[in-house]
Amino acid sequence: MTTKPLTVAVVGATGVVGGTMIRMLLERGFPVGELRLLASARSAGRTVQVDGTDHVVHEATGDAFDGVDIALFSAGGDTSKALAPLAAARGATVIDNSSAWRMDSTVPLVVSQVNPDDLEWHEGIIANPNCSTMQLVPPLMALRDAVGLERVIVDTYQAVSGTGGKAIRELQAQVEAHVAERPLDVAVYPHQIAFNALPQVDVFLDNGYTKEEWKVVTESRKILHLPDLRVSSTAVRVPVFVAHSEAVHVETTRAISPDRARTLFAAVPGVVVQDDPAT
Amino acid sequence: MTTKPLTVAVVGATGVVGGTMIRMLLERGFPVGELRLLASARSAGRTVQVDGTDHVVHEATGDAFDGVDIALFSAGGDTSKALAPLAAARGATVIDNSSAWRMDSTVPLVVSQVNPDDLEWHEGIIANPNCSTMQLVPPLMALRDAVGLERVIVDTYQAVSGTGGKAIRELQAQVEAHVAERPLDVAVYPHQIAFNALPQVDVFLDNGYTKEEWKVVTESRKILHLPDLRVSSTAVRVPVFVAHSEAVHVETTRAISPDRARTLFAAVPGVVVQDDPAT
Repeated sequence: MTTKPLTVAVVGATGVVGGTMIRMLLERGFPVGELRLLASARSAGRTVQVDGTDHVVHEATGDAFDGVDIALFSAGGDTSKALAPLAAARGATVIDNSSAWRMDSTVPLVVSQVNPDDLEWHEGIIANPNCSTMQLVPPLMALRDAVGLERVIVDTYQAVSGTGGKAIRELQAQVEAHVAERPLDVAVYPHQIAFNALPQVDVFLDNGYTKEEWKVVTESRKILHLPDLRVSSTAVRVPVFVAHSEAVHVETTRAISPDRARTLFAAVPGVVVQDDPAT
Repeated sequence: MTTKPLTVAVVGATGVVGGTMIRMLLERGFPVGELRLLASARSAGRTVQVDGTDHVVHEATGDAFDGVDIALFSAGGDTSKALAPLAAARGATVIDNSSAWRMDSTVPLVVSQVNPDDLEWHEGIIANPNCSTMQLVPPLMALRDAVGLERVIVDTYQAVSGTGGKAIRELQAQVEAHVAERPLDVAVYPHQIAFNALPQVDVFLDNGYTKEEWKVVTESRKILHLPDLRVSSTAVRVPVFVAHSEAVHVETTRAISPDRARTLFAAVPGVVVQDDPAT
């Protein structure tokens, strides 16, 4: 599109995801002119290291987006709900990592390998899906295009990193207490996460699913353009620090061999097929 | 049947499961006259505490089963393959926890709440299923009887205890090394189990499933008397010390409401319905 340096704002710059966003911008050589680090009033004034130098974090207000080309939001749904329209009104293109706008009919929900064309109808806000959905849809796309999708069942093995830095610290503290034979403190999750598997990710909804499970259902349908796809999910938090895993069972419309599926998966950008049990 | 004290042999008495068998016999007030503790030649001579007193473990040979009424085997498939027929020939009723005899057409595979009638045709050896199957089939039975079963998908979250004492010690040692910031030793599993999820339980078969996954398929069919039931499973080891969990998705022949399913499950002996998300 352009290599003109862009003014990029990162909202939630003091969080785990915000920090990763900053690192990825640098690693990928994204043409950043000005990098504006924003956060809640509570975190404003803190500094964040960028490429070895300290940057001050400013409070995310509407005015903070003046002159911003791209605003990456990862500061929770409430912040996105309040500030993304203000940023968009000032001409920024918002890319929102929260759940605030994902199912809004005026907001495209995009995974770059799967539905990049949906970027064309954005009105200033673009959402990316939940982490469980993000990694799920690229291989599903390959099956949809080749043999059609009838039904998808997804059971997750989700790392504590998905909850943020405080959950990473809680798992570490619980493990340290276990080794020292001290009682474990439980604060972030409803139960101990060390040496446990918690079949609850986010809150429960009236339909019996957790919010996380329901996101996998609704977001997958929207991204894949299959509003009636039958999807069910059980989302489970496991005592892993980083990286979400999923067991996925798919019923396809037409038959497909495992070999052909592997070939299709390997052709999807960003997908690495690891299927060599011997090693 | 009788309250005449029985001579009970526990084969694998020095293992985690053998130890639990002994404890359960005591806790349930099973009418044990003589308790004969047996193990491999390697473990013979060791002592095991039973009800506060040390008992010597003897080598499991054919002759060791003379006079035994019930022989509980949990010493691995090879031991069961070799010794269970010898024990049965001496008049013992073998209850085998290994995989050696489960799919043998002359051996009933029994879960007490599900198919107790299959005990009637045993010829000296009775098998119990794999741990993942054992906990799966009682609720499936309730659905089968009420509305019919079409398809079952089971993804597991299996504790290291299923691998035995050496795996429990490996998880503990890896966690201690993590806290001490030392390198982790990996011996029991093909990869680190601490802070990891391993989609491999037991060895891989030619059909692409692991042996554990295939056990869930074949054993469920045999126990439920549904040889053509469509079952698929992904078996995953998680860094949990004790207790296997499963996410189970069932397609029934006729529709059933969640409320009715809960009522049916609660009526199955040994099943406790825990479905109060608020707590």
